[in-house]
Amino acid sequence: MIQQVEFSLPQYSRGFHIITNKVLDNIGELPEKGVLHVFIKHTSAGLTINENADPTVLHDFESSFNHIVKENEPFYKHTYEGSDDMPAHIKSSFVGSSVSIPITNYRLNLGTWQGIYLCEFRNNGGRRNLILTINY
Amino acid sequence: MIQQVEFSLPQYSRGFHIITNKVLDNIGELPEKGVLHVFIKHTSAGLTINENADPTVLHDFESSFNHIVKENEPFYKHTYEGSDDMPAHIKSSFVGSSVSIPITNYRLNLGTWQGIYLCEFRNNGGRRNLILTINY
Amino acid sequence: MIQQVEFSLPQYSRGFHIITNKVLDNIGELPEKGVLHVFIKHTSAGLTINENADPTVLHDFESSFNHIVKENEPFYKHTYEGSDDMPAHIKSSFVGSSVSIPITNYRLNLGTWQGIYLCEFRNNGGRRNLILTINY
Repeated sequence: MIQQVEFSLPQYSRGFHIITNKVLDNIGELPEKGVLHVFIKHTSAGLTINENADPTVLHDFESSFNHIVKENEPFYKHTYEGSDDMPAHIKSSFVGSSVSIPITNYRLNLGTWQGIYLCEFRNNGGRRNLILTINY
Repeated sequence: MIQQVEFSLPQYSRGFHIITNKVLDNIGELPEKGVLHVFIKHTSAGLTINENADPTVLHDFESSFNHIVKENEPFYKHTYEGSDDMPAHIKSSFVGSSVSIPITNYRLNLGTWQGIYLCEFRNNGGRRNLILTINY
Repeated sequence: MIQQVEFSLPQYSRGFHIITNKVLDNIGELPEKGVLHVFIKHTSAGLTINENADPTVLHDFESSFNHIVKENEPFYKHTYEGSDDMPAHIKSSFVGSSVSIPITNYRLNLGTWQGIYLCEFRNNGGRRNLILTINY
């Protein structure tokens, strides 16, 4: 069986943001067992699962991604949308456009330190649309 | 319920290629609601979802991946399959071997600018086999 | 329909390890058709699918990841858990916390050269917990 909902996040600044509660607020009661699929309908922002406790981790994610996928590389041809745009596409494919999380006993079965991240790679990405689909 | 089909793509040159229509051509009518799982049965090519409009984005993906995961690194030991092989494995794990896309109202619920990419990381990768599985 | 099991891997050393058989040992008979979702409940280890044949590939994965996501970067703020910790979080998001594999004719429908990797990014990561969920 399938349960599905689409919704918009509030606008976030460039960087990594924990949105686990935003996701939970937009699905009703979870089934006893299944998988939650979270999908982002954009190509310059992504989703990942990582540490939910220390805010410096979020900071270091932003610094590391900027260091590994640099702006203004001389080989970029897709530059007319701004220097943050092409790196945003690459970074999005590094993390991916969806995460899938097991559901067990009517709850997301995440590890203690796991949270869902919105990875906002644009300076002004606007509101991002997510689709939640539960297979159960 | 499950619907599944396996098929081969035509051979693509090294680089990033939009294959959304190739995928759609190989599945019949989509269900009202569900998730499409696209899986590639290879370890030196991958799948991702990214921008479907400007061909320079595909070019910049190739340049960026080559820049971040270089050929002929002195620390590579797995070299007997050619200088493009080991980087192809690393790149494949960066994008991943599958993408999952929500199905809504009998259609893939992709964002306006999203397309499915085949990421061909070998110089001569040959034909690649995909498996499409729909949970609905 | 859903089948689900949670189990702990033995402790692995830092590096990349093929765990396909460990996964298969922990699920019973596979259904005729479906998708296996493998999820890791940790943020400094990940899962990916890659080459299952030549052990030097595993070695080169470790070298490459260490080269691309370096320890002791001057911009890291999250340093109190050791120099291997923050890079482990970044690397985990590069590979991701889950893999999904089609099931066909009661078997995992992997390519000939594909195996499931545990990517252990910590020096002493301890035992890692996985959740296997089958949609069929």
